[in-house]
Amino acid sequence: MDSDIARPITSLPALIVKELASLVGGRISVAPSDLYVRGKGECYHPSFPPDIICFPETTEEVSAVAKLARRESIPVVPFGAGTSLEGHTAALQGGICIDLSRMGRIIEVRPEDMDVTVEAGVTRKQLNSYIRDTGLFFPVDPGADATIGGMAATRASGTNAVRYGTMRENVLALTVVLPDGSIVKTANRARKSSAGYDLTRLFIGSEGTLGIITEITLKLHGIPEAIVSAVCSFPNAAAAVNAAIETIQSGIPVARIEFIDQVGMDAVNRFAGLDYPVAPALFFEFHGSWTGVEEQAERAGEIATANGGAAFAWASSPEERSKLWQARHDFHYAIMALRPGAKIWGTDVCVPISRLVDCIEFARTDAADAPFPVSTLGHVGDGNFHMSYVIDPENAAERQKAEELASRLGFHALSLGGTCTGEHGIDYGKTKFMMAEHGAPAIALMRLIKSSIDPDGLFNPGKILPGFNHFDRGTEFTDRA
Amino acid sequence: MDSDIARPITSLPALIVKELASLVGGRISVAPSDLYVRGKGECYHPSFPPDIICFPETTEEVSAVAKLARRESIPVVPFGAGTSLEGHTAALQGGICIDLSRMGRIIEVRPEDMDVTVEAGVTRKQLNSYIRDTGLFFPVDPGADATIGGMAATRASGTNAVRYGTMRENVLALTVVLPDGSIVKTANRARKSSAGYDLTRLFIGSEGTLGIITEITLKLHGIPEAIVSAVCSFPNAAAAVNAAIETIQSGIPVARIEFIDQVGMDAVNRFAGLDYPVAPALFFEFHGSWTGVEEQAERAGEIATANGGAAFAWASSPEERSKLWQARHDFHYAIMALRPGAKIWGTDVCVPISRLVDCIEFARTDAADAPFPVSTLGHVGDGNFHMSYVIDPENAAERQKAEELASRLGFHALSLGGTCTGEHGIDYGKTKFMMAEHGAPAIALMRLIKSSIDPDGLFNPGKILPGFNHFDRGTEFTDRA
Repeated sequence: MDSDIARPITSLPALIVKELASLVGGRISVAPSDLYVRGKGECYHPSFPPDIICFPETTEEVSAVAKLARRESIPVVPFGAGTSLEGHTAALQGGICIDLSRMGRIIEVRPEDMDVTVEAGVTRKQLNSYIRDTGLFFPVDPGADATIGGMAATRASGTNAVRYGTMRENVLALTVVLPDGSIVKTANRARKSSAGYDLTRLFIGSEGTLGIITEITLKLHGIPEAIVSAVCSFPNAAAAVNAAIETIQSGIPVARIEFIDQVGMDAVNRFAGLDYPVAPALFFEFHGSWTGVEEQAERAGEIATANGGAAFAWASSPEERSKLWQARHDFHYAIMALRPGAKIWGTDVCVPISRLVDCIEFARTDAADAPFPVSTLGHVGDGNFHMSYVIDPENAAERQKAEELASRLGFHALSLGGTCTGEHGIDYGKTKFMMAEHGAPAIALMRLIKSSIDPDGLFNPGKILPGFNHFDRGTEFTDRA
Repeated sequence: MDSDIARPITSLPALIVKELASLVGGRISVAPSDLYVRGKGECYHPSFPPDIICFPETTEEVSAVAKLARRESIPVVPFGAGTSLEGHTAALQGGICIDLSRMGRIIEVRPEDMDVTVEAGVTRKQLNSYIRDTGLFFPVDPGADATIGGMAATRASGTNAVRYGTMRENVLALTVVLPDGSIVKTANRARKSSAGYDLTRLFIGSEGTLGIITEITLKLHGIPEAIVSAVCSFPNAAAAVNAAIETIQSGIPVARIEFIDQVGMDAVNRFAGLDYPVAPALFFEFHGSWTGVEEQAERAGEIATANGGAAFAWASSPEERSKLWQARHDFHYAIMALRPGAKIWGTDVCVPISRLVDCIEFARTDAADAPFPVSTLGHVGDGNFHMSYVIDPENAAERQKAEELASRLGFHALSLGGTCTGEHGIDYGKTKFMMAEHGAPAIALMRLIKSSIDPDGLFNPGKILPGFNHFDRGTEFTDRA
């Protein structure tokens, strides 16, 4: 573990610790193992542990911590479930980690309005389990059981986004604590509004750099009458991706359309004891009425066949579907299991759908001579895919190779009119793409917004926009361990 | 016309006029009739004419005008098609009107990505006419043939929003000129991205107060295989609205579900020579495959019947549908024709759908003794409805009564968890609701954003957030006429 710590744990003055503890009912921790976990997330980055963790239970407690942090000029980093892949929770400059896991209340479910208000620490699975009896569900599904607060802060999406949208489309309102401790409610519960600036969307995707999200009001969706899933194998990756593109272009309202390459299917089979053909595959899911689902599946099947796809392997009972999607969700761990002791250096990009084959082929060709397993997984309906480089984290050459591949892929996606990240976020892992993606005037505007709201640069410093570092020592941490 | 001008037309110094003309190829106007029209829009407010109009043809020309305006401290107000209902185009403090009508190019249609890039002056009908052969359409339909730039700036929506979303959901990227003249591209064309702050949504709904939108990249949607429309009469307004609520709650993916009250149906019949029953009605439209549409219509019909609705009057041929929706779109003019010489004082609110009957009943009861015709029209699938007060614009007592009714309705919508405007915008007609709707911390944050981006308060001064006025004389214009 020691070699995986990029920053020495330091201590805040005893008086500050005492005051902080008093603000949150004594719920703090300075145990090294706790600090290590908070500074890491599920990513390839080393841990940047915070100096202290506090566990507020209310928005007011978060506000009190923010005020203390500002008065004492201490960095603040929020933490949800720690499922970030780009280092969102890394305390690059130490400071206070605000762990929101004790803000886990579901405040109000309103089935008649198809919405719900939750605290930031509720996870998506907790929410869906809680509301199961209402006939409604929350569709945004990034795979990991992330917190709703973390998902909002990262503008998360996942497998269902092609039909139901991302967090951008599914959040109605937020409660946010600003760096000055003020508590902003960004909107009310109306489904649409033209009343002033869209503060909600300002914070969605801001990764804790503008405010700490403490409550979220979400849209819910009716559980469809019929849900049918299927897996279809293809002779090669391009055929599968082309089938996905044509499915989207033909307007079939698929709920999910996921690509997994041959390496991934092999890994998933081994990991989960399944026997899908070891070939590039699309995982489909169709939502609607029984006749609607049948119609969708038939048309998607025709497109698949025309692209060389094999017959659909169907799953319509909840058990079969659950098994099928478990395989898809196990992808990350299945790939990791290909190589004992390995870690995944993951990256994701998103391009206009007509450029998807180009971009995936580029990524796979570029990685063809990599000295480690490589696999491709895509939310291809959105033009979004992930490359997983299964590296030995102790091997500097492999780390460097993965970084080079991810870097070239990011810039290639930009050249195709795409983005360097469809859903993982920038954090500090992808700041190098920001100027190329957005251009100097847009970056200047983002900096202006950041410096207006967080003039001291205390909220998640070093993230999204480098240069907002509390200490000048910010740069010493930009090289990875 | 003179009595309808709230601000004397003043003149800019000749040197400034000359310089401005040179920046836009001589395309300027100071003709009083031109100035009057630009300062008015289709609203009940009097005209606040600008001092001069310029007609840029490129983003760079807009940027040059913004730089001149900043250097000389002159207010800037953008103008599209002038279909605003809340006074967006009013030059409350004079200055330069930037008329974007000459920026009317459709820059690129990309059917394979289902998106399009247009200049701000393209209207929605021009766009849909242009792309007809691609099999795609742009769904956002506020009724008026507004410009895409104006629709983005106002966060417009309309009849299709219940299925296809508002401008918030349908804009992929913007080009925006900031008050310092810099040109920002807010995003690329990826369908989703987690790369930094959501600058696109920051400008959507900002009503020209943060920047001038010059180019817009929009999502397009496939024209459905089948489109069927129907009108259904109900014994009373509450029955119709309840049927709409149940339709939404049951998850039927209606493309449009519009409410028109008895007064409105009578007016529409007279205006368009139709013979619908003079009773509260719902206008439905269903999009999908033929079997899907049939299924949707059947289920919606059952819900309507259960709420006392009559048999559906169907329209499935394009001609019949066009006639039906023309009736709906003529509503504004049909209502106005109820009373010769009258104008409509219109207002719109949006509430969580479970509160919609309450809110509509409140609005109608409150207006029961009004000395002028009153009609209710609703995009009820979103919880959004409009009250139209058909007033004599010369009658101060009527104007005051309409304002009182609109004011009480706005605050009542807030008390139900709704918003004071679902789609018309704040502009200067609704600034009084802003504090009550958002609360002091959110308003402070909006002011911070405004003052950071437009420190001199030159972009559409007096709108959304009162107090950002270039001249101190701002307040003298807050009374109408």
